[in-house]
Amino acid sequence: MNRKKKGKFQKSQFKAAEPEEKRRLPEKGRAEKKRFPGSGNYIFGVLPVTEALRAANRRVEKIFIGEGVKPGRISEMMRLIRQKGIAFQKNSRQELEEMVGPSANHQGIVALTSAAEYYPAEILLEEVFSGSKPLILILDGVEDPRNLGAILRVAECSGVDGVFIPERRAVGLNETVVKSSAGASEYVKVAKVTNLNRLIDELKENNIWVIGASGEAEMNHTGWDWTQPTALVLGGEGSGLHRLTAEKCDALVKIPLKGRIESLNVSVAAGVILFEAVRQRESAEF
Amino acid sequence: MNRKKKGKFQKSQFKAAEPEEKRRLPEKGRAEKKRFPGSGNYIFGVLPVTEALRAANRRVEKIFIGEGVKPGRISEMMRLIRQKGIAFQKNSRQELEEMVGPSANHQGIVALTSAAEYYPAEILLEEVFSGSKPLILILDGVEDPRNLGAILRVAECSGVDGVFIPERRAVGLNETVVKSSAGASEYVKVAKVTNLNRLIDELKENNIWVIGASGEAEMNHTGWDWTQPTALVLGGEGSGLHRLTAEKCDALVKIPLKGRIESLNVSVAAGVILFEAVRQRESAEF
Repeated sequence: MNRKKKGKFQKSQFKAAEPEEKRRLPEKGRAEKKRFPGSGNYIFGVLPVTEALRAANRRVEKIFIGEGVKPGRISEMMRLIRQKGIAFQKNSRQELEEMVGPSANHQGIVALTSAAEYYPAEILLEEVFSGSKPLILILDGVEDPRNLGAILRVAECSGVDGVFIPERRAVGLNETVVKSSAGASEYVKVAKVTNLNRLIDELKENNIWVIGASGEAEMNHTGWDWTQPTALVLGGEGSGLHRLTAEKCDALVKIPLKGRIESLNVSVAAGVILFEAVRQRESAEF
Repeated sequence: MNRKKKGKFQKSQFKAAEPEEKRRLPEKGRAEKKRFPGSGNYIFGVLPVTEALRAANRRVEKIFIGEGVKPGRISEMMRLIRQKGIAFQKNSRQELEEMVGPSANHQGIVALTSAAEYYPAEILLEEVFSGSKPLILILDGVEDPRNLGAILRVAECSGVDGVFIPERRAVGLNETVVKSSAGASEYVKVAKVTNLNRLIDELKENNIWVIGASGEAEMNHTGWDWTQPTALVLGGEGSGLHRLTAEKCDALVKIPLKGRIESLNVSVAAGVILFEAVRQRESAEF
């Protein structure tokens, strides 16, 4: 059941980020960072936010634009927002004040940045494709920061090569995630991608099996041969895997549940499946 | 490595609870129940609390005694508190008011009761001893209610026969636990015991292997034969298994960690180990 090798891995569809040295930090006095426990960091002002958008590693999670901001003042910022596919929304001036405090000269622009560094997706993919027996994790819409933190802890403890999360409709690396991960967010490589389905296509083209976890699967998670190069896809808390994502997977697996309730917490499911992979890989070594 | 059978199981050292019909609910108007989100339920007043203490299933978690309460008024209550080994502490009148509100006629006595029913330990033990292939879970000091809830969810999903928790220095079935368990607290049998070490002795005497999870173990969790009658002992969040508990175990197992951080969340560890037991038991059926 090995996917047919196609020789060298294909060129990544994911654009390279700008080099690290081009990443400019806002000058002192122009950009102030304010920390709100559990909610990541905010930066504000037209120029500091534009500069943060130009920086590598996708540190900007979301942009809040106050009422009455003149479009001409933020045309370059909007171009970058669209180019990078970053979420943005309109807010009242009062809402912006609640984020950054009343004394901040926010000029109607506030950006929420992540509390930990992302790993560039295209570099992570190159590492994965050149590794000997990759095991990766894809999260299809995990929204609870405690769950994401717990999953990163599992990912680090089970030795996965990297974790991919989607740009939208999912929680990013905010401070609650970092705290819940018990240090794992410092070690495990987390990359953001705009389009999970394109990622799955690229993995499949590069001979990595894509296995989704779904309660509707017929195969138990112990039935898959995890010694093969594999990406495990886990759905979000509420609805599980998206239909389109599930259809794109090479196979679906389920954890056999023995009780009367229908599902495990997603971080526990991650632990159960990834440590089955560890078990199989350790057994295969003998 | 089967423990030598000693014929019939021995008589439980755990006293039988009073029969269900003797359990008296406080009459209307005499006992008021007030709910505080995340903190269980409070009942108050000398007589209602004394009656709750007489009731079966150990619903009373803790007693708060206000300053200035005359010992003669609560002598029967204190006798029951000591007999049942329930935790109690002195509090100011103001602290009691914060628990039950300013209009409550608490008479200096407030009791915190559990948000879900406990299963009587001696009945659970009889069921375990008469079962064919028992798998039980013992929690040695889990203090975080979200963790306990998540563990109960794992216990239900992996089909364990019951969960034992200690009376003291551990969280009980409060409302956060019930909520975090995603419904599992309604199904999984949870019993409280005063003395975990006595419980472990009794399990061993009745041919049930007692296996502790510890990062210092030499054997991996996959190395134990979980098709045998087994009780898994998990430690609390901070310090893991107590030394004495670890020494009492027949064997210790560890989950092989592949990363740079030292431990998994206790609910994830429960999932990884208990679903290894499920895997072995299902394989053994073929």
